[in-house]
Amino acid sequence: MFKAYAASSAKGDFDVIEFDPGPLGYDEVEVAVEYCGVCHSDLSMKRNEWWMTKYPFVGGHEVAGRVVALGEGVEGLEVGQRVGVGWTSASCMRCDQCQSGYQNRCPSVEGTIVGRHGGFADRVRAQAAWTIPIPEGVDSVDCGPLFCGGLTVFNPLAENHISPTGRVAVIGIGGLGHMALQFANAWGCEVTAFSTSPDKEEEARKMGAHHFLSTRDSDALQSVAGKFDMVLDTVNAPLDWDAYVNTLRPGGKLHVVGAAPKVEAKVFPLLMGQKSIGASPTGSIVRAKEMLEFCARHEIKPLIETFPMSKINDAMQHLADGKARYRVVLEADW
Amino acid sequence: MFKAYAASSAKGDFDVIEFDPGPLGYDEVEVAVEYCGVCHSDLSMKRNEWWMTKYPFVGGHEVAGRVVALGEGVEGLEVGQRVGVGWTSASCMRCDQCQSGYQNRCPSVEGTIVGRHGGFADRVRAQAAWTIPIPEGVDSVDCGPLFCGGLTVFNPLAENHISPTGRVAVIGIGGLGHMALQFANAWGCEVTAFSTSPDKEEEARKMGAHHFLSTRDSDALQSVAGKFDMVLDTVNAPLDWDAYVNTLRPGGKLHVVGAAPKVEAKVFPLLMGQKSIGASPTGSIVRAKEMLEFCARHEIKPLIETFPMSKINDAMQHLADGKARYRVVLEADW
Repeated sequence: MFKAYAASSAKGDFDVIEFDPGPLGYDEVEVAVEYCGVCHSDLSMKRNEWWMTKYPFVGGHEVAGRVVALGEGVEGLEVGQRVGVGWTSASCMRCDQCQSGYQNRCPSVEGTIVGRHGGFADRVRAQAAWTIPIPEGVDSVDCGPLFCGGLTVFNPLAENHISPTGRVAVIGIGGLGHMALQFANAWGCEVTAFSTSPDKEEEARKMGAHHFLSTRDSDALQSVAGKFDMVLDTVNAPLDWDAYVNTLRPGGKLHVVGAAPKVEAKVFPLLMGQKSIGASPTGSIVRAKEMLEFCARHEIKPLIETFPMSKINDAMQHLADGKARYRVVLEADW
Repeated sequence: MFKAYAASSAKGDFDVIEFDPGPLGYDEVEVAVEYCGVCHSDLSMKRNEWWMTKYPFVGGHEVAGRVVALGEGVEGLEVGQRVGVGWTSASCMRCDQCQSGYQNRCPSVEGTIVGRHGGFADRVRAQAAWTIPIPEGVDSVDCGPLFCGGLTVFNPLAENHISPTGRVAVIGIGGLGHMALQFANAWGCEVTAFSTSPDKEEEARKMGAHHFLSTRDSDALQSVAGKFDMVLDTVNAPLDWDAYVNTLRPGGKLHVVGAAPKVEAKVFPLLMGQKSIGASPTGSIVRAKEMLEFCARHEIKPLIETFPMSKINDAMQHLADGKARYRVVLEADW
């Protein structure tokens, strides 16, 4: 039997449950959870904000742990090996997207906490291909958040072919944004942080921002007109889309990984400057491996606050209150 | 003195004027206009729909003609040579965009009919670099529309790195769309035409469409969900953006070259499928040359209706009435 922390309703607390996960699949891996990050999407899922939550709900999709069992068909992983599991726990491996290396865009991709139980537990399972080895130089305690939030903000740099000679801005210095600043800086770019909180400036600069601008200062936005190759939007709120399109240089991309409900922008500025507005989900298997190697090489890690997993309700509240600086990680204490 | 057809107001007819163009610039070329296409943007400019028209207004930015004079500093062009001039008549050649080969994205780009007199005239001038030689195999009579409309729909195939293995849809089978179908077909792609006019199906197929779908049939749009690498929007009207985003395969691009006022789309479908909405203006100098060579190699040309230039008011009315099939060209008859 697996033990887990489950919420029985959108408003309920997480309480211990036990459940039988059934036989281990042919290509599945069972992972003992040592650490599990708490992502804002765990909160959204618990609250059923995306209309796809099943209760009892066991969140947790930023797992760092060790392999404890291998399905019959699994090769290349060993019991005891350090691995992580992120937003995606499996994909079909047969569709064009999977077969093109874009397993994260598989139409039947399986979310670790969507219709199944995630990492707020003693153990979790995932397809072997999505069970990502953690390389030397990356510590288990703080790497959980890389597997979802980290990958989500690392991927756009690669997918948009951002050059190290380029200029990147990050909107929102929070759970995602603080990793994005580090990635963009190590990518070689000139990095600008946009934040509503002036008190985050010092930390933003430590994390790699060369410039810090308040999003509440419309003169500041105007001062960077035509500047950025990519503006990465990490906030869960509507933007003044036209104002940020205006900060793009010709050919620039406004890339959304936050969960604003919709984009709305004038066509003419997009057209005159050959600009675009796009979005993306997490990243592929190989991208996750590249990211971990990049983190090891550049000593990148999320800034975390740890809670014992038994204090999960406190941890969730801390996150819900907007107090996380910048990523909450649960440490298994069964 | 140059002779030209000028409109003195948004609602007025075009009448003959004469004007002194001043001395020929150091890097300018003077072109005797043999043919000049009439683009929908000539109509929009005449009506001052974009708030940047100066009267008397001389439209015409799809010029095919011959060099009649060269500025002192011009090399590589000869008097008598066949050349074309499109939307752009000059760019600064000093900014990062110009120096990166994206002269069409120059912030101080000069439009052939913006604040100066265009090709509804006996002669027109342009910067030498923007005076594009017409290669063997491309006829002057029907190549004018390539220099604006053609380039505008050719460019997105190249800029979006569309593979010949890809699937491209074109929304709107008109002045732009009918060239886009030919380009996409010769590019090697599987081509789908979206049109509000079922009577255009036969012609659309002749122009290279493998499939034809009515935009008024929501089942048709649903039947191509997840299909296209690029959907090229060539219409001057708002779209059901979400419905077309839904027709993109993961990683697909909705590319706008029509002049709808704004885009408005849900973020979640963009995010889940790593999709984007972008736009672009005409194309660069080298892209124009590539397009002309591509047209020569693939025997691509716009379908045109010719009017004597002296019948310019009839020609404009024909276009305004939506009767052009598919591109109107004026033949100089001074």
